[in-house]
Amino acid sequence: MRFELDRLQRFVTDVLVAVDVLPDHAETTARRLLEADLRGRTGHGIIRVPQYVTRIEGGAINIRPDIDVTRATPVSALVDGDNGLGQVVMTIAAETAIAKAEESGMSWVGTVRSNHAGAAGVYTEMALRRDMISIYMAVASANVMPPWGGTERLLGTNPISIVIPGGAEPGFQLDIATTVASHGTIKVLAQAGETMPEGWVIDEHGLPITDPKEADRGFLMPIGGYKGSGINMAIGLLAGVLNGAAFGSEVIDHRAVPDQAANTGQAIFVMRPDLFRDLDEFESAIDSHIGELRAAGEPGAVHIPGDGAKSLEDEQRAQGVPLPKVLLGQLRELSSRFGLADDLS
Amino acid sequence: MRFELDRLQRFVTDVLVAVDVLPDHAETTARRLLEADLRGRTGHGIIRVPQYVTRIEGGAINIRPDIDVTRATPVSALVDGDNGLGQVVMTIAAETAIAKAEESGMSWVGTVRSNHAGAAGVYTEMALRRDMISIYMAVASANVMPPWGGTERLLGTNPISIVIPGGAEPGFQLDIATTVASHGTIKVLAQAGETMPEGWVIDEHGLPITDPKEADRGFLMPIGGYKGSGINMAIGLLAGVLNGAAFGSEVIDHRAVPDQAANTGQAIFVMRPDLFRDLDEFESAIDSHIGELRAAGEPGAVHIPGDGAKSLEDEQRAQGVPLPKVLLGQLRELSSRFGLADDLS
Repeated sequence: MRFELDRLQRFVTDVLVAVDVLPDHAETTARRLLEADLRGRTGHGIIRVPQYVTRIEGGAINIRPDIDVTRATPVSALVDGDNGLGQVVMTIAAETAIAKAEESGMSWVGTVRSNHAGAAGVYTEMALRRDMISIYMAVASANVMPPWGGTERLLGTNPISIVIPGGAEPGFQLDIATTVASHGTIKVLAQAGETMPEGWVIDEHGLPITDPKEADRGFLMPIGGYKGSGINMAIGLLAGVLNGAAFGSEVIDHRAVPDQAANTGQAIFVMRPDLFRDLDEFESAIDSHIGELRAAGEPGAVHIPGDGAKSLEDEQRAQGVPLPKVLLGQLRELSSRFGLADDLS
Repeated sequence: MRFELDRLQRFVTDVLVAVDVLPDHAETTARRLLEADLRGRTGHGIIRVPQYVTRIEGGAINIRPDIDVTRATPVSALVDGDNGLGQVVMTIAAETAIAKAEESGMSWVGTVRSNHAGAAGVYTEMALRRDMISIYMAVASANVMPPWGGTERLLGTNPISIVIPGGAEPGFQLDIATTVASHGTIKVLAQAGETMPEGWVIDEHGLPITDPKEADRGFLMPIGGYKGSGINMAIGLLAGVLNGAAFGSEVIDHRAVPDQAANTGQAIFVMRPDLFRDLDEFESAIDSHIGELRAAGEPGAVHIPGDGAKSLEDEQRAQGVPLPKVLLGQLRELSSRFGLADDLS
């Protein structure tokens, strides 16, 4: 079933207000979640609403945070989220970073005492819309694998997004977890009764697990073996430890712990391309190089990060956002529990 | 056979001066090459000297470059290398970036009309020695694979290095190509008559090539499939296109073309950690988190980027730098051809 974007925006806002989130925080959170859905990042879209409600009701998230931009310099700031909703904290961080980069050429803004903020690419897109380069990194909200060669889960799916503006939509938009598979993808296979390819999950002896229902007893695999494990660690150290946020054994599984603050850390870097080349010239060059890469195989065969996102967004804006059955059921339950005007029928 | 570090430094300098490189450029290049050897990055160490000589003698590299720091702002600069030796151009770029980051908190310096500059980690280490975070990216000097899903070679091994200072040596030092295997590793297996694991090289039908002697007709594989392909592209766009340097079909294979300028691009980002946390506190936290990661498996089993580099350097400073037979033969040949005082006997 598909629902109009504005209706879902109102619905999610109303759900969050019903658990006493400030109206403008609720609206920002709903907007960031739906931006993820619009661009096909459904694992970080409104599928997360029930989980956020659980953590808010459990007292894990501060619904009256005093979010503070500290240690500000012309090129940097540390945003202390006071344990507020991650989307709200990261939106302030991204806006701060964009404003500083416009003024100073580039900036790096970190967060501490933040929470799960959804899709990485949602924040870099805010910079992309201003024709700026941006890199986002986050410490994921659960540990799912050991460092390469180890046996103790100390690392998460630590995502990274890198965007580079082109003259034409959508520019270059990388948005990936640094593990081979995400929990969302594995859950989809489990529900479909299918098996996982080798290389996604291993057990404590290093042997592959291919039954997705058994995935939880294993370890996710980093992309590229020790190399991806290294990139994953770097993200954790830069997005977490640099800001005084949780990393390694300090990270709690936010899905399993409804009553404990996560101290999540994120980082966003923003840079004006005209530091190096005139903007028009740069964006034309990006378009032409992306075009060359796209033409390096059969039509539609080459994977260019960001391709397809704009047309998917256009389609969903025109035809509505599809909600899978299970999620729709959960949202209707929330509607009935909170006595909302819209029951999504 | 092992040779004293200072002797090799003099030898490489003399070789480069013999082909009319300016003495201080020769010395810088020798230093950067040997730093790679000292830290175990032998594929980017003095093994490259014969190839550099070939390109200098072929006229591909400008031995009297007018290297120009252009478009300077307090946080950025573009270094026009005027087709000089890559180590010289990148050393100026790294020094410029470090000075700007010390003053402004962070900086990003790109290069254009540069050349192959050797090991990525050599430049980030310059920032690490000043207790700064650094990221280096480069467009590799040959195309070895198509973008994910394609069939035309448009991407190189595009390396990235990320360093994060700890209180104890060596800190976190990632230095990787974004392909699964490097040409150097494959060459070693070919010489040993061994086979390659599946997943390193594929042919034009996507089938694995496991005979290393057949590797040249295939494509290298990016780390992590489409994800690593995306990271690899991002590196190319940021280190190449942003600076007006070569990317995609503009990249020449510098080993195969001895008489053509490469227009190589690199980028280095440097940042002071004390923008976010007091330096001592930050470095202690990095030490303790790296310690925790290291302890997540059997002793020595966990792969921490940078581990082992310091002890390898100490060992080679004390006992000399080992030179493989083939390379030693090539260097002796250069000595005899140029009539150098030292014949490395």
